[in-house]
Amino acid sequence: MEVIEEMLSKPHNAQQCKARLNAVGDAIYVIGGKWKLRIIIALSEGNRRFNELQRVIGGISARVLSNELKDLEINGFVKRNVYPNTPVIVEYELTEYSQTLDHVLQALADWGAMHREKIKSMS
Amino acid sequence: MEVIEEMLSKPHNAQQCKARLNAVGDAIYVIGGKWKLRIIIALSEGNRRFNELQRVIGGISARVLSNELKDLEINGFVKRNVYPNTPVIVEYELTEYSQTLDHVLQALADWGAMHREKIKSMS
Repeated sequence: MEVIEEMLSKPHNAQQCKARLNAVGDAIYVIGGKWKLRIIIALSEGNRRFNELQRVIGGISARVLSNELKDLEINGFVKRNVYPNTPVIVEYELTEYSQTLDHVLQALADWGAMHREKIKSMS
Repeated sequence: MEVIEEMLSKPHNAQQCKARLNAVGDAIYVIGGKWKLRIIIALSEGNRRFNELQRVIGGISARVLSNELKDLEINGFVKRNVYPNTPVIVEYELTEYSQTLDHVLQALADWGAMHREKIKSMS
């Protein structure tokens, strides 16, 4: 594991640079795009139904949300619970594996807030 | 600042969830997409010319790389240096501000490497 950590630290040579490019590329492939992390944040407060989720996130179409939720389910971040009442209730829930993204989400949230402050102070 | 940190911590209520959604949304708006972080990683090893950059990153067209570099310049992550030799040499360099992304890059690199290991162990 130490070898991997060394490989992924701030690049000082071509090999480290390549390792970091690959690892970040993998992450972007799975959780990149405009919506996936936002859906995960919106579910972190508690399970939600499709319409609630769409309202909380804002600006996402039903078709895109539906596709993103399927991707998130396939990749093990989200669980879809169906309660066969009348009418049927479908609820989305975060899996334990989604917690592995905590550091990523915290780093992005901190950076986004810092960057917004910087832009505000410039204008 | 403590208030902001509290707001951006793991969401336990609707207000924290909204703050985190906004902050991560801001981050994705500026550094999201398939290429920007990869370009920054590729430049972290040292300044590079356009063609070198395209080769190191891999899979990016000249047109897309050119647009992404312009965006990165506008947002203060990259500096474009022109040396008026014959032929003219154009080199791209990271700014100091790009270092504010260190935590984000480290978190994504760690997560990407962990996720790849998980996928490998499953197959």
